[in-house]
Amino acid sequence: MTTVPSAAASRLADAGYRRFLTDLFGVMAYGELSAFERLSFDARFSPTLHDRTTLGRMAVAEFRHYELVSERLAGMGTDVETAMAPFQPAIDAYHQRTRPGDWYESLMKAYVNDAISADFYRTVADRLDPDTRELIGRIHEQEQGDVLLGRLRTALAEDPALGSRLALWGRRLVGEALIQTQRIGVEHSFLGELMRDGRGAQQDADAVAPLLSRLTANHSRRMHALGLTA
Amino acid sequence: MTTVPSAAASRLADAGYRRFLTDLFGVMAYGELSAFERLSFDARFSPTLHDRTTLGRMAVAEFRHYELVSERLAGMGTDVETAMAPFQPAIDAYHQRTRPGDWYESLMKAYVNDAISADFYRTVADRLDPDTRELIGRIHEQEQGDVLLGRLRTALAEDPALGSRLALWGRRLVGEALIQTQRIGVEHSFLGELMRDGRGAQQDADAVAPLLSRLTANHSRRMHALGLTA
Repeated sequence: MTTVPSAAASRLADAGYRRFLTDLFGVMAYGELSAFERLSFDARFSPTLHDRTTLGRMAVAEFRHYELVSERLAGMGTDVETAMAPFQPAIDAYHQRTRPGDWYESLMKAYVNDAISADFYRTVADRLDPDTRELIGRIHEQEQGDVLLGRLRTALAEDPALGSRLALWGRRLVGEALIQTQRIGVEHSFLGELMRDGRGAQQDADAVAPLLSRLTANHSRRMHALGLTA
Repeated sequence: MTTVPSAAASRLADAGYRRFLTDLFGVMAYGELSAFERLSFDARFSPTLHDRTTLGRMAVAEFRHYELVSERLAGMGTDVETAMAPFQPAIDAYHQRTRPGDWYESLMKAYVNDAISADFYRTVADRLDPDTRELIGRIHEQEQGDVLLGRLRTALAEDPALGSRLALWGRRLVGEALIQTQRIGVEHSFLGELMRDGRGAQQDADAVAPLLSRLTANHSRRMHALGLTA
């Protein structure tokens, strides 16, 4: 459980890559832990017991992801709590500024968070060692996004008035997510390092800009697919 | 996963026992689901990230218990949501009336809930078929109670003023738990049936009384063991 996979071992000898990986795993771990807590709490407001257990099951999956990342950090000899701490302010701020008003907003939030993280990890995947890529692939299965998308479609079909509210809410979610991603990019060099990779010296904030615009474009596409104006 | 264990199958032919088991599993399932949601939310207020993940892990265990009971109901051909519904008002009322004011109260609540449920299941165990007894044994492992007890002891040693507040809180918790247990006893015959077992016709409320006094006595013993006045 706590051994470092061999393919990662060579790159882990590089102190810069180790530092980068510690940050990446730290932000992932805290993101998963927070998602677990928020999702399981929001589940209580579900319209049916069935929805409640569906969201509960997703929350439990988030906690398992937290444990997977945590084990990987332990294998690197790094304490998960130390690795998470620097990212706590940005992620806490995101959640404080995007408290869902009801269950549908909470469902939308889970969908947007899941999609944006998947996008982000897809973007950085080819800059990672194969074992880290494999870990991230295991964490971001398509399945959860599909369940959320299906449930959102049903809700929107049942109540067409929900659409404009959720479109607005989606814009707010993605806006806050980008603000906090940028904040992480400015406060911690790891995002900048990642995006700048092999493209010379740029300011961290500039290096992160193309990532942000890609996340925004993908978000718009997803909202359109839901029939919402993004 | 969804087959009925053989030893239970014969007693399940008895419609009365089936009805009783449906109620028992229904109240257990909803209790576990609610405990999962509350515990994972309260975890956010933990003083350290370490405490946060410890409570999170416990919450995940509660959800696994919910799934175990849910599978057993499915094996009986009973829908878990239908089985849970009658017990939702009493369990929701318990949680609404015992909202922890901080993390220590939440820790105490988890400890008291865990101990009272374990007590309750110990009391009824010898009236159940072996497979149901085995299921309940798996769900109520000693481990969780020990972790909570250890953490409470540390907290009380670090801050002696916490003792009087938690003693008061413990009394309130057990009081509300007994009120809701009695309510379930009056509203649903299954508890009365269980306690009356082989002791002739009694009113449900009277049949439940010895159970309530046993739960109270055990609670007092546990509070004393923690150095608290119960």
